[in-house]
Amino acid sequence: MCPMKVAVDAMGGDHGPGVVVEGAVNAAREHGIEVILVGQADVLSALLNQYNAGLLPISIKHASQVVGMDESPSDSLRRKKDSTIKVAFELLASGQADAVVSAGNSGATLATAMVTLGRIHGVRPAIATLIPTLKEPAIMIDVGANVDCKPIHLLQFGLMGAVFAQVRLQKTAPRVGLLSIGEEDSKGNQQVKKAYDLLVASPLNFVGNVEGREVFKGDVDVIVCDGFVGNICLKLSEGLAESMIEMMKKEMAVSLAAKTGYLLAKTALHRFKKRVDYAEYGGAPLLGVSGVVIICHGRSGAKAMKNAICVASEMAQADIISRLKVALEEQQDGVGGALCSPGL
Amino acid sequence: MCPMKVAVDAMGGDHGPGVVVEGAVNAAREHGIEVILVGQADVLSALLNQYNAGLLPISIKHASQVVGMDESPSDSLRRKKDSTIKVAFELLASGQADAVVSAGNSGATLATAMVTLGRIHGVRPAIATLIPTLKEPAIMIDVGANVDCKPIHLLQFGLMGAVFAQVRLQKTAPRVGLLSIGEEDSKGNQQVKKAYDLLVASPLNFVGNVEGREVFKGDVDVIVCDGFVGNICLKLSEGLAESMIEMMKKEMAVSLAAKTGYLLAKTALHRFKKRVDYAEYGGAPLLGVSGVVIICHGRSGAKAMKNAICVASEMAQADIISRLKVALEEQQDGVGGALCSPGL
Repeated sequence: MCPMKVAVDAMGGDHGPGVVVEGAVNAAREHGIEVILVGQADVLSALLNQYNAGLLPISIKHASQVVGMDESPSDSLRRKKDSTIKVAFELLASGQADAVVSAGNSGATLATAMVTLGRIHGVRPAIATLIPTLKEPAIMIDVGANVDCKPIHLLQFGLMGAVFAQVRLQKTAPRVGLLSIGEEDSKGNQQVKKAYDLLVASPLNFVGNVEGREVFKGDVDVIVCDGFVGNICLKLSEGLAESMIEMMKKEMAVSLAAKTGYLLAKTALHRFKKRVDYAEYGGAPLLGVSGVVIICHGRSGAKAMKNAICVASEMAQADIISRLKVALEEQQDGVGGALCSPGL
Repeated sequence: MCPMKVAVDAMGGDHGPGVVVEGAVNAAREHGIEVILVGQADVLSALLNQYNAGLLPISIKHASQVVGMDESPSDSLRRKKDSTIKVAFELLASGQADAVVSAGNSGATLATAMVTLGRIHGVRPAIATLIPTLKEPAIMIDVGANVDCKPIHLLQFGLMGAVFAQVRLQKTAPRVGLLSIGEEDSKGNQQVKKAYDLLVASPLNFVGNVEGREVFKGDVDVIVCDGFVGNICLKLSEGLAESMIEMMKKEMAVSLAAKTGYLLAKTALHRFKKRVDYAEYGGAPLLGVSGVVIICHGRSGAKAMKNAICVASEMAQADIISRLKVALEEQQDGVGGALCSPGL
């Protein structure tokens, strides 16, 4: 296997380049992945020295500008021609890298990916993320790239999510479910009811509607939803998980027995917290653009960055883009003109 | 204060009439609320005897039919003219009761309420529910009555939610937020962006968009969303809370220290579980119909039923229907023809 080269936006994220370089060093050291760190060369080479990374397959590509976390994506695209995000995508587009990972401004990452790489023909790119369940992790798609979706887009999300599940979760025939408000096919809004019919007619292993309360049970591998609903669900879950841990601590502070219990159970709680922390899952791929792109949480630490770099390498190795193209094109042939039908 | 009469669908819910009667008895005994139990007279009077309820202000109204939990709402409306749900609403419509509480088939309860009571002029009725937060409980509206909403409906939900917050949470100027995917007014789908403008122009104390992760922080009193999104959020939260408790138990089973910790902290965990259990919150009112209606979770126990009966009485006592009418009509006057404008 030829080692994959991953271009990493080294200046992105809430914690600055330190954690990104640490993650890259560990990905290179532990997994032999080639990393191109994109950012201010002097800062990055100082950090690499700090980690004794001299013999590792890590190179630096200088980029003089950084897109701020709150900067408007369109402004940054227009004004910052030498941003770390832009330069990273140019490496991918020109074949000098096999994947891009960024924990920077996610709107700008998304917009730059679209412009620099282009979309797979006829497809609405979507963000997929892994979520913890009682069993194995599941994939939720879209969690924020598209706020107004048509039924046909939900079908595309299902197809792309299934390919990602094959690569990432090693599922041969991933179970695909449609997020809705009841299990019966008659349940849902207009968009979801039409998407239901498209999913039934697709070659996917479609298991029907999935209710909110089933999401974390782990009986479905891919949960399809529009980006507005998915983003709200994702953030709601993050917020609830954090709040529950807070509430639990408060409840436990009430009695001495509970306090002692809390101390004894602290490691378990810590492990649990990690299990529900999305940062642990190695970022969220943007599927549907012509290149492997992983968007990481702004608050990603070194471990999350390392995981994301490994996942990016794994996706490039599996040639996921070709597999996505095949799945999406077969479907477009299969449904004839459906991609262009009004109302779909 | 004149005591309120609450008609209770005594045969509804997953646990049968026992828990309903127990809840009614406690509401009458502890709070002096008059309850009319609607259901099979012989069954109910035997249960009342069991609870020594002879001197309590509880009466029985016979109804011979029960709507099954999975029955189609439209079928039940057409076929079961003497169902407990139907008879309960007739008591309310004819002024023999001041409110209705049901833990039965919620679709049938909703449909029967619409038909029997009618809507407040020009309004889309919505279901509001209390959700736990790190501070005080907040209200989420709509959590399932409307799956395809226009922006104007979200404004109506905000107005109704605010009136409910005044009555239920004793907030003079409840903070109303709009569930979206970012705090900036530019964030959201088409529906939410238009609703944002309507809410800004309304007399509400509108605090702007609320992201999923802010929902449980408790800085907003009323969270407005369409019924599709709200229902998914509600069930997702329920599912996540349950799954987290499951996961935590598993993590704690790993080591002896953690196991001991779990045992010591069990009461705290139990209290915590109750705090995130929606059944504890006294049901969810259906706002926008011409009468006080509380829809309870099918799995409501006696305490949840008692709480719901108390909330129903409190809402009737506060004459919430008149207050809702005033708030909604003022708004209709205020925005002129906005309620009928295309696209709203």
